[in-house]
Amino acid sequence: MKTDKLLFGAAYYDEYLPTDRIETDMEMMKKAGMNVIRIAESTWSTWEPQENIFDFTHLHRMLSCSKKHGIQVIVGTPTYAVPTWLVRKYPDIITETHNGPGRYGHRQNMDICHPMYLMHAERIIRRLMEEVQPYDHVIGFQLDNETKSYDTCSVYAQKKFVTYVRELFQDDLERLNEAWGLDYWSNRINTWEDFPDVRGAIARSLKKDNYLVLETEAQGNHGWLSYPGQLRLQAFSHLANGANCVEYWHWHSIHNAIESYWKGVLSHNLKENATYREACRIGADFAKYGTHLVNLKKHCPVAILLDNESLTALQWFPTGGGLGYNEIFRQFYDALYEMNIECDILSAEDDIDLFGHYKLLITPALYSVSDTMVDALKRYVAAGGVLLATFRTAVADRMLKIWHDDLPHGLTDVFGMTYDQFTDAVEVGLRAVDMTESVNQHSVSESVQQRHHDCVRHWMELLLPDTAETLALYDHPHWGDCAAVTGNRYGQGYAAYLGCYTDMDIVKKLLGFLCEKAGIAGEEAAAYPLIVKRGTNDLQKEITYYFNYSEEAQETVYHGADARVLLSGQESLDGRDETPRSGSTAPEATSTIIVKDGDPLTLSRWDFLILEEL
Amino acid sequence: MKTDKLLFGAAYYDEYLPTDRIETDMEMMKKAGMNVIRIAESTWSTWEPQENIFDFTHLHRMLSCSKKHGIQVIVGTPTYAVPTWLVRKYPDIITETHNGPGRYGHRQNMDICHPMYLMHAERIIRRLMEEVQPYDHVIGFQLDNETKSYDTCSVYAQKKFVTYVRELFQDDLERLNEAWGLDYWSNRINTWEDFPDVRGAIARSLKKDNYLVLETEAQGNHGWLSYPGQLRLQAFSHLANGANCVEYWHWHSIHNAIESYWKGVLSHNLKENATYREACRIGADFAKYGTHLVNLKKHCPVAILLDNESLTALQWFPTGGGLGYNEIFRQFYDALYEMNIECDILSAEDDIDLFGHYKLLITPALYSVSDTMVDALKRYVAAGGVLLATFRTAVADRMLKIWHDDLPHGLTDVFGMTYDQFTDAVEVGLRAVDMTESVNQHSVSESVQQRHHDCVRHWMELLLPDTAETLALYDHPHWGDCAAVTGNRYGQGYAAYLGCYTDMDIVKKLLGFLCEKAGIAGEEAAAYPLIVKRGTNDLQKEITYYFNYSEEAQETVYHGADARVLLSGQESLDGRDETPRSGSTAPEATSTIIVKDGDPLTLSRWDFLILEEL
Amino acid sequence: MKTDKLLFGAAYYDEYLPTDRIETDMEMMKKAGMNVIRIAESTWSTWEPQENIFDFTHLHRMLSCSKKHGIQVIVGTPTYAVPTWLVRKYPDIITETHNGPGRYGHRQNMDICHPMYLMHAERIIRRLMEEVQPYDHVIGFQLDNETKSYDTCSVYAQKKFVTYVRELFQDDLERLNEAWGLDYWSNRINTWEDFPDVRGAIARSLKKDNYLVLETEAQGNHGWLSYPGQLRLQAFSHLANGANCVEYWHWHSIHNAIESYWKGVLSHNLKENATYREACRIGADFAKYGTHLVNLKKHCPVAILLDNESLTALQWFPTGGGLGYNEIFRQFYDALYEMNIECDILSAEDDIDLFGHYKLLITPALYSVSDTMVDALKRYVAAGGVLLATFRTAVADRMLKIWHDDLPHGLTDVFGMTYDQFTDAVEVGLRAVDMTESVNQHSVSESVQQRHHDCVRHWMELLLPDTAETLALYDHPHWGDCAAVTGNRYGQGYAAYLGCYTDMDIVKKLLGFLCEKAGIAGEEAAAYPLIVKRGTNDLQKEITYYFNYSEEAQETVYHGADARVLLSGQESLDGRDETPRSGSTAPEATSTIIVKDGDPLTLSRWDFLILEEL
Repeated sequence: MKTDKLLFGAAYYDEYLPTDRIETDMEMMKKAGMNVIRIAESTWSTWEPQENIFDFTHLHRMLSCSKKHGIQVIVGTPTYAVPTWLVRKYPDIITETHNGPGRYGHRQNMDICHPMYLMHAERIIRRLMEEVQPYDHVIGFQLDNETKSYDTCSVYAQKKFVTYVRELFQDDLERLNEAWGLDYWSNRINTWEDFPDVRGAIARSLKKDNYLVLETEAQGNHGWLSYPGQLRLQAFSHLANGANCVEYWHWHSIHNAIESYWKGVLSHNLKENATYREACRIGADFAKYGTHLVNLKKHCPVAILLDNESLTALQWFPTGGGLGYNEIFRQFYDALYEMNIECDILSAEDDIDLFGHYKLLITPALYSVSDTMVDALKRYVAAGGVLLATFRTAVADRMLKIWHDDLPHGLTDVFGMTYDQFTDAVEVGLRAVDMTESVNQHSVSESVQQRHHDCVRHWMELLLPDTAETLALYDHPHWGDCAAVTGNRYGQGYAAYLGCYTDMDIVKKLLGFLCEKAGIAGEEAAAYPLIVKRGTNDLQKEITYYFNYSEEAQETVYHGADARVLLSGQESLDGRDETPRSGSTAPEATSTIIVKDGDPLTLSRWDFLILEEL
Repeated sequence: MKTDKLLFGAAYYDEYLPTDRIETDMEMMKKAGMNVIRIAESTWSTWEPQENIFDFTHLHRMLSCSKKHGIQVIVGTPTYAVPTWLVRKYPDIITETHNGPGRYGHRQNMDICHPMYLMHAERIIRRLMEEVQPYDHVIGFQLDNETKSYDTCSVYAQKKFVTYVRELFQDDLERLNEAWGLDYWSNRINTWEDFPDVRGAIARSLKKDNYLVLETEAQGNHGWLSYPGQLRLQAFSHLANGANCVEYWHWHSIHNAIESYWKGVLSHNLKENATYREACRIGADFAKYGTHLVNLKKHCPVAILLDNESLTALQWFPTGGGLGYNEIFRQFYDALYEMNIECDILSAEDDIDLFGHYKLLITPALYSVSDTMVDALKRYVAAGGVLLATFRTAVADRMLKIWHDDLPHGLTDVFGMTYDQFTDAVEVGLRAVDMTESVNQHSVSESVQQRHHDCVRHWMELLLPDTAETLALYDHPHWGDCAAVTGNRYGQGYAAYLGCYTDMDIVKKLLGFLCEKAGIAGEEAAAYPLIVKRGTNDLQKEITYYFNYSEEAQETVYHGADARVLLSGQESLDGRDETPRSGSTAPEATSTIIVKDGDPLTLSRWDFLILEEL
Repeated sequence: MKTDKLLFGAAYYDEYLPTDRIETDMEMMKKAGMNVIRIAESTWSTWEPQENIFDFTHLHRMLSCSKKHGIQVIVGTPTYAVPTWLVRKYPDIITETHNGPGRYGHRQNMDICHPMYLMHAERIIRRLMEEVQPYDHVIGFQLDNETKSYDTCSVYAQKKFVTYVRELFQDDLERLNEAWGLDYWSNRINTWEDFPDVRGAIARSLKKDNYLVLETEAQGNHGWLSYPGQLRLQAFSHLANGANCVEYWHWHSIHNAIESYWKGVLSHNLKENATYREACRIGADFAKYGTHLVNLKKHCPVAILLDNESLTALQWFPTGGGLGYNEIFRQFYDALYEMNIECDILSAEDDIDLFGHYKLLITPALYSVSDTMVDALKRYVAAGGVLLATFRTAVADRMLKIWHDDLPHGLTDVFGMTYDQFTDAVEVGLRAVDMTESVNQHSVSESVQQRHHDCVRHWMELLLPDTAETLALYDHPHWGDCAAVTGNRYGQGYAAYLGCYTDMDIVKKLLGFLCEKAGIAGEEAAAYPLIVKRGTNDLQKEITYYFNYSEEAQETVYHGADARVLLSGQESLDGRDETPRSGSTAPEATSTIIVKDGDPLTLSRWDFLILEEL
């Protein structure tokens, strides 16, 4: 979502405050450079205290006062917690789950398929929209919060599911029984699951565009109080990833109930504090440099494919050691992050057409594949793409029925290998055979041959190469002649297959090897905790962010066209001019410091640096 | 409760015995010096086998036979387990809990708000009292056993709760909603909780008088078999704390059901055994020395304030690492115990008027405070008392709504500091600044400066001193200029604040420093495992107990007025006269051994020694 | 069960296969030497898709095709999973358990007492038998799979239980209340429990005859893929224990549902794989050597007594550390196994008459004993048997009511000792006094005196010897004069009692000492991982199996009459003749290699060797 300026603000709940201080709050926000608030989320019982009796006093107070102070507003739906009168009238709105009947008192416990929930939720949302309609400084609506199924197992959900299944199989029960193998003794009806871990990492990828961060921690829960400067580091991290908005959860700390210690910008005494003072600096920077930082255009050479069906499948059929989909997925995401290779996350359901935009495509544990997906992967490699698949790829169809031809289903020619046996890995190592083109000078062979004996864990497939070259063999007394990693030229591209779960450094070697094949330039001079992010701003200039996520100073060397230092974290935090942190000697105003190819850069702890191409 | 003699005995259940042996049992009790039994607890189905049909055969057997043998009786209510016929008639007497519907078979599972439970319980108790009334050797009644709510969540409990709330808020729903913040998405109706850990330690403090120990283990559950001599050590420990009665759970081991291995004085073969023989020695000592040991008058210089609301609050809002109220509380109790500084435990609900009786008052994690409590603490310090508060003190009101002024609420002038930020503590140390008046020669500065880096754990408040002196700073790369411990002169007194959870030895240094300020003399020559307890007996003589709770011999030096050795554990256990264990050379009868100031004392393992002022 | 040949095969489910390949499968089975399949288990919904509508198409396909290929058939009952229509009609067929109401979807979740389950199950089984009746190659029926109660708590189970109890106590409620102690506050109605661990080890002992292994893993669940050669090692292990049949669970890997990864002989691609090729070797060996290996007659000198009531008792009344019955039992079973002393497992319910067949009888934690059992043990020792009892033996009757005479109940004269106290063991060692006749050269005294301090764990009874000799004392500061292990001559026999849970090596010393007393020759030259099994074949020749269950080569020395090498694992696995592995130099055909007393034998990793007496 493109915006005309950077947005900065917090969630605001006038109705929770112990005294009438809305004017004070808005003035403090203005002083902090805040220009947006989010209101009304989860407040059904405030707007509709009894059925069909409405009271929007607080809503209009917030809308009027924010308008007066020039603060824009995002309005959230109030319906992810239900009021007491609704539960008293329809007790079964509190949903039955796999753990039995629910109880009132928590949020997100309602049956989202219940017709009375849906009817009443629609009414309050429509009423709220009518109230909001006259205010032209409302710039957006939040549709839901932490969307999920709440493990709903109600009769309504059951009916919808049966309807869905009947449509899916066009009322043909024979096809259903065959597809699901219901002659066997188990069924697997309840497989939808939320997707908590990876989801947080995919926000920009949903629309492959700029996005708004509507909730990020200010003081956070008590264990998360940031060090001085970290709040600001985090704010610019969001921008570096393509965000156009940073909004805190929430303005002030709540004085009662279960979220009392998910603290806001203000502490419980509602006065200026260290967090507020740091927010003021962020606000000032956003105002000053916003036109250079808003609408950053990203261009990632790598994509990782994410698949909810495969996640579900691995919950039912985990590997040894209970290794889950998220853990496998995260290893690749983290490896690329630490190597400073920026990546997008694609959805297996929606993004098949986008494969061709990337030089390297990674499909971690893509257990469930349709034939459409198989064809897309095949065409991607044939056309010159580099593909990295892992163990447990292309095993079952979209109903999780295992394919009964050679694995990986439909892709044995692409990978040039197959396998029919696998096992848990106990005290298994790797011996490299042919992966010498690594970008990092070291060949995998050398480093892997020095591995201790248990670098393979939880799962190993005994790969049988046909046309593929063997990149690594297992180091095992009985299965030492089976391949662990293979690579195969297919059409114009290359398809590698990692048959086991292994250590992070071996994963990085393999990624380095494949980046080289794909022609992706690595960030040779910097690795985690020194993170580099790039993009193009509205002025068509390349912006480069450097972040030091560590307690120690970090050094690197700049490579690229001449650029100027737009902003550094330390400088503004300390509120004074500083010794320039680039090797160039140019002094005076920060904005005139020029950095050239080969210049050394130093970042002190938790510091950041933003360069703009000249 | 003052008594005319020491009471010694066991719980007795004639109805459980496999053969008719009540005469044998009573004779064995007499031989062991026992003079009291407790009967009738949890025996409803024996007295009322069917509704309104009563059978008190066993009751009268026990009452008659005990009377004949001169053994007094305490009668327990039979109603903490319900009979089958009552449950069959009113199935919902088995209470619904947070874990769902209950099942018959265990005890303490009934709905104590159920009107039919209450009606029937009252009837059986009244009937029992009528039967007992003629027996003049019944000296007391036990009202309940392990009193708690059984997690009752029934409709009756719900109604009583609603009635209570309406009275509390005088039917003003607006006040309720404000006080509880019910516009937020959570409610917190079910907050009553039992209080298992600390409760066992507070028995004497309930009435600040002598008390009766009605249940203590004989052989205990199988893992608890005491070493020879320990049962006796334990019996005299109870007396040293002010008990006038030691009664075992229970006389004989039960032959079936779930408590088969909560063993009694007798094993399952119901013969004399090692435990019984040790009980005989205890009984003989109680008879011989009872007039010197009964009604011990205690005088403690320190009090610790205990608060159930704060315990509940910390269950909802725990610190990092899940540190609970009991753990925080126990650290101070244990430190004083190990330092041989005797303390009372006061109730935040009932004992505000008693503050002035103590030189040092400790309020561990007193999260919830009323304004009445704030005023009492203020007056206590102003009048010359020494107060030690910890992190999480004076945060919320009695409804657990967080105060919205500066913390600690209403006491910033007393402590001379405030704070508005806190966090979990990871790798944080302490640097002492000013705590050099410690009673133990070492200044805190020295010792703390030698601390390894992680002596602060789970919680740290970033204290901002105003008039207070800083007693310790955090040793942390970012928060090194924040105070961790402060002290402030206020009126005639002194108020210290410990802002973090830290190691036991640092807590002891701080307590030593504050005892010095409060003019409390420590027991310099003895510390745990050598425990010293004092009091005044009915003859107005000072009694001093020494206990060696360890496997090794312990040495100390006696300080005080001339005293005689009343009794030592080893001597009587071995059944022979012994080399005197004091440095004085006086021989002959134990009762003539005199101990003078400066004399060395030696206690062998698990031994004890009782001195009486001459 | 004697058979005319070795049986070899797999479970087969034509109805699960993704394509029509029954002819292919049967041909592959023939090629692998398979001669039996098991069918029809758990397939109710296939045979009776709607109530009273039957379809046996797949049944007749399997029966006809197997007949054509000369493959015999074992038919399983289809009723351990229930069809959907039955649950829809009688929802309460899904049983209520201790965890609440059940749900459809898993197997083994029905109320096996439900009259409608029983009626419908009988009908489908009778119909199935009618269909099967014409086929003369059906050689057996499997009555149930993994028989257990499914934790059934239904009203039907309740009624049957009440009926059982009324019969047991002949309607005398007074006797019931006394026997169960129901005047105490707990009942213990629901004590039946399954018996998972030990059961798998007892299969031959049920009838003390040869047996059929109807389910053993092929590729197993993914973590269990065997090394090359191990499948064959396992097949011959079954024969060495007396099996006449080895049948795999199952022929082909299932493509959906929860058992997708309990893999079969074939992988999901249904082609020849490494496991299949190894099965072919097994089949060929079975055909070639079957007449020498079938119907092996075993003769074990030792028996261990197994008791379900005692297992239940220890679940209710566990020792310290939660030590369970199975753990105690397994220590003796494992010790004998590792010492190469073959043993039978006897049932406390059924096998009292068999005690006299064994030289050494072991009764681990035989908590619950009837007076009949007490008499049998007494007569066994009096007649010359050697008995080893452990802690927790003869404590309670069959209703688990603790005996109220001296323990071990009724056996104090047999063991020559008693005890009345016990405790958890913390940092306790053993000091040996008199156990110098050990078969293994070392006296227990020497080795035990070198023990570290905590070789006794979880439970220690303080034994008080009368006529018994003390074999070991506790090494403990307070209980050092109490016996830990005793032995007593009684009549013509000897009765030892182990009063504590202790280390495996001490258990082995004690077993060695008692084997010596009982005149049982040990296998001096071999111990785990080199396992020796013996028996007599149909030709009245002694057969000796050697198995190397390890990754390293093992050496031993042959002792016995001249024998020939019948088969070795390595040889046939590699498909070629090999250097003979006995010390004798005789070459040529394997069957002519002769082994003489004193010859060295070498087994490579995971190898085996079968000798037949000349």
